[in-house]
Amino acid sequence: MRIDIITVVPGILEGPFSHSILKRAEDKGLAKVRVHNLRDYGIGKQQSVDDYAFGGGAGMVMMIEPIASCIAGLKKERSYDEVIYMTPDGESFDQSMANALSLKENLIILCGHYKGVDERIREHFVTREISIGDYVLSGGELAAAVVTDAVIRLIPGVLNDETSALTDSFQDGLLAPPVYTRPADYQGWKVPEVLLSGHAANIEAWRFEQSVRRTQERRPALLAKRYKGDNTKNG
Amino acid sequence: MRIDIITVVPGILEGPFSHSILKRAEDKGLAKVRVHNLRDYGIGKQQSVDDYAFGGGAGMVMMIEPIASCIAGLKKERSYDEVIYMTPDGESFDQSMANALSLKENLIILCGHYKGVDERIREHFVTREISIGDYVLSGGELAAAVVTDAVIRLIPGVLNDETSALTDSFQDGLLAPPVYTRPADYQGWKVPEVLLSGHAANIEAWRFEQSVRRTQERRPALLAKRYKGDNTKNG
Repeated sequence: MRIDIITVVPGILEGPFSHSILKRAEDKGLAKVRVHNLRDYGIGKQQSVDDYAFGGGAGMVMMIEPIASCIAGLKKERSYDEVIYMTPDGESFDQSMANALSLKENLIILCGHYKGVDERIREHFVTREISIGDYVLSGGELAAAVVTDAVIRLIPGVLNDETSALTDSFQDGLLAPPVYTRPADYQGWKVPEVLLSGHAANIEAWRFEQSVRRTQERRPALLAKRYKGDNTKNG
Repeated sequence: MRIDIITVVPGILEGPFSHSILKRAEDKGLAKVRVHNLRDYGIGKQQSVDDYAFGGGAGMVMMIEPIASCIAGLKKERSYDEVIYMTPDGESFDQSMANALSLKENLIILCGHYKGVDERIREHFVTREISIGDYVLSGGELAAAVVTDAVIRLIPGVLNDETSALTDSFQDGLLAPPVYTRPADYQGWKVPEVLLSGHAANIEAWRFEQSVRRTQERRPALLAKRYKGDNTKNG
């Protein structure tokens, strides 16, 4: 899988993609993430990428031309499944969308900055608009990093232990149960006895019960969805 | 405002905090973000921070002791409004929570990694659990960066033009209207005429109508909330 990210602030994305799981996915040849500096496609001597909004008002708007030529350059080299625009008014990103995107081959993710991109880019170039949540960020870069991380870790072989992702929250429509490690007693705070019992069936039953209880308390909507049976899964 | 972030992968956070708005907030003395490497508080020669889960299963669990001593060290220096743990089963982060957090003075954000932290940390040290969305990331680092960015940009003086944040999506319970910049005609795709008219009242009316329409189409729940009047606002 390959993800091309278009941004005016490539530096924001240096850390996330040179550490941890994304680095490992790249080293293993399982995923390629390339960050493109939109300014390389800027207009005129200043290599401008933004301009004032028509109609006035605060904030700059990202121009069509640099984005159009960056996307055109990428499309010349390969075909893309989606051109995604990160925006707070997009479709809500969730685990089932992460599963679906992890099966794609090539994605472009366009990060808005300032007041966002010229609407005509959204109408003519973008195939999918995604929001990571109902809040506003200073740009789409962190949102793009979130989507990239959530998607790439689902590619088989990226996590050390494949079962690790399968027991995550949401994968079975339930939140994960509490976890504990040593010491068994820390200043009088003890680990639940069943986890020390070595009795695999009891442990599994306890974890399932805890998962259901936690989901009921914290995300009752997930539970309702699970029992309606429409918790889309892939792979 | 000061935010202390505790993580086992500090490198992920290098980019986000040395660029763009967060850098500017720091330079202006409006916000301080400090990233703490949990490994500095690790146990034994290996400076261990994680161990196997009691009861078995995939994935490592972050131990209590390093986290407890890191938090204790920070609390010796100042008092904190909240110790936040980033977790997919936490309270959903949204713009009104961002507004509320932007009024705090000192926050600790603890990033989980691997299978998460020992449950006793959540019970005894954490005062608030926050989720940025219904999906799983390889760690809490990007989530912490998202919260930090969303919160700090709301501090007066951080954005160049203060009205800029006020016209963002969600701040008035509506999604932002479409924006356009030059050229007015790009390969036959034209900017709506009203925006070129110079007629301020008409432009405002058009933008409001577009905002309402977009909210109706994409986030009807926001609109319902707005007209119930419980869209909490601060400041």
